[in-house]
Amino acid sequence: MNKVTNRQVRLRSRPTAIPQAEHFEIVAHPLPGIGPGQVLVRNVFLSVEPAMRGWVSAVGNYSEPVALGAVMRSFAAGRVEQSRAPELPVGTWVTGIFGWQDYCLVSPADITRQIAERDLPLSTALGILGINGVTAHYGLLEIGQPRAGETVVVSTAAGSVGSCVGQIAGLKGCHTIGITGGETKRRLCRDRFGFDAAVDYKSVDFETQLAQACVGGVDIYYDNTAGPISDAVMRHLNPGARVIICGTASIASWEPAPQGPRVERQLLVKRARMQGFVIFDHPEHDQPARRDLAAWIRQGKMNYLEDILEGIEQAPDAIAGLYRGENLGKRLIRIAPL
Amino acid sequence: MNKVTNRQVRLRSRPTAIPQAEHFEIVAHPLPGIGPGQVLVRNVFLSVEPAMRGWVSAVGNYSEPVALGAVMRSFAAGRVEQSRAPELPVGTWVTGIFGWQDYCLVSPADITRQIAERDLPLSTALGILGINGVTAHYGLLEIGQPRAGETVVVSTAAGSVGSCVGQIAGLKGCHTIGITGGETKRRLCRDRFGFDAAVDYKSVDFETQLAQACVGGVDIYYDNTAGPISDAVMRHLNPGARVIICGTASIASWEPAPQGPRVERQLLVKRARMQGFVIFDHPEHDQPARRDLAAWIRQGKMNYLEDILEGIEQAPDAIAGLYRGENLGKRLIRIAPL
Repeated sequence: MNKVTNRQVRLRSRPTAIPQAEHFEIVAHPLPGIGPGQVLVRNVFLSVEPAMRGWVSAVGNYSEPVALGAVMRSFAAGRVEQSRAPELPVGTWVTGIFGWQDYCLVSPADITRQIAERDLPLSTALGILGINGVTAHYGLLEIGQPRAGETVVVSTAAGSVGSCVGQIAGLKGCHTIGITGGETKRRLCRDRFGFDAAVDYKSVDFETQLAQACVGGVDIYYDNTAGPISDAVMRHLNPGARVIICGTASIASWEPAPQGPRVERQLLVKRARMQGFVIFDHPEHDQPARRDLAAWIRQGKMNYLEDILEGIEQAPDAIAGLYRGENLGKRLIRIAPL
Repeated sequence: MNKVTNRQVRLRSRPTAIPQAEHFEIVAHPLPGIGPGQVLVRNVFLSVEPAMRGWVSAVGNYSEPVALGAVMRSFAAGRVEQSRAPELPVGTWVTGIFGWQDYCLVSPADITRQIAERDLPLSTALGILGINGVTAHYGLLEIGQPRAGETVVVSTAAGSVGSCVGQIAGLKGCHTIGITGGETKRRLCRDRFGFDAAVDYKSVDFETQLAQACVGGVDIYYDNTAGPISDAVMRHLNPGARVIICGTASIASWEPAPQGPRVERQLLVKRARMQGFVIFDHPEHDQPARRDLAAWIRQGKMNYLEDILEGIEQAPDAIAGLYRGENLGKRLIRIAPL
């Protein structure tokens, strides 16, 4: 038995919509001893994802729901503090699905990767060089297949995935239009993330602004919302358009599925394709995506924002906060000194 | 000037939904003389397509709308009666977009093809060996990419496209489920077209029957309907499913688009793809598709049904009749002796 106390954020009750603070509880207990072949990781950064809503949902999804009473599933980045696995010596920096807790006892097989980009901030391992950047890279390039000169529209364009999508599209020679909420985020899209145009979906003349921004039609729509924003974009599809379904942030509950304008006719007359993906299906894409992204960051061609909360006490309300739109950039929780 | 009278079915007024008999008029007038390089085709069979609803619609579509007062656009099969083009001697059997009329003066460039399969009935040139069969072949094989053992669901399964899709899927080793309306068509699907299961969407327990038929989930959904039938099928998608959007027969008007359950979440969690296509974009596929289809017909592996109306007087109401569901198989109008 270690002498260290491990704080864990556990799922206390199962939300039917967006998980709120009351669905979690923080429990502290002594850490068990390290077993043969194991390592003890001390988490420094915990990740907060919109997709966590799905991970705690009982309804059909792309991963098993987190069990009641279990530690909340989460990506984390940390340092090996104790090791009984020779390939992972003390001091190795790693990422993995370590959960919302201070420490995690794992086998080497549970390590997602050793962090190679030690010249870049550790936090990037969970954002632009983690699931967010790889998701943007895979969805846009593999599913969207952008060609130079095409128009790419991105929803949640100031977010950690959307801002990366817009910048990659720009690097590939596309005309980029970001959709986001509020003037602050709209300016971020233009000034920080280099979108050619940015439209505020909260403005009263959103549809007119959007129509003006994509007057030449939309070749690729990278969507993270699935609501009225998408309905507006779908009307502007060009022949051969690709609609990439990455997330459904604007819909509070899918039981039952909310109604919206049927898309079949538009897909038919525009010979368009609408396709969903889940990045966990494509681990082979991690390394090439991260190589591209790290290079672009080092060359000053890729910007990213992080919204770092301090202390594990912030965790229970952190998902709800994402859906309240209070973050700017990738949300992380720092729970230990670097 | 020829001495022959040409009867033409012209668009008299523009329908807002399904074209009815009153939207057309039949006009007879003397035929102009044949010019240098032209041929005069006498139409024997005229085609009637669900897609004609779109061809006469003023709203965004995949082809220019038929002008008011113009001859109704239509595929036809006929025989060269007079020729001033050496490559098309009198007696050549041809297809093309000759319109709903007795005769058509055309250049060789307007000929879609010379009919090679003279051992098969001429009518097949407009159905199973025409746009319907090629549409089924392209959509299922190129967009659907079926693999042996997968489950393929087809809507309007007793129709000229759907019945062909089901048989091709069966030939490729797929488990096939047809959805159609009424017991007669349901039996046709099973007995004539060889679907492994057939479900009547008009039965009170349609959804239960469908769920039982596709208990292993749906890998490919070939859709011609875009309404409640699709909503029911979408709930059964397997991971990696492909939804092929070929037609939207169940929707009377798309202005504005009717509401239905949003599909984004299902596409996301099932990593599914929904894709529309228009066969006119893929002329390179005609020949290989027709080669396959003709071979299957000659080998007794491919059945088809035709619903042949007699006389050009039947044309004005013929599209409306399709949407009333009164036909069994590909609808044609015979306007001359063979």
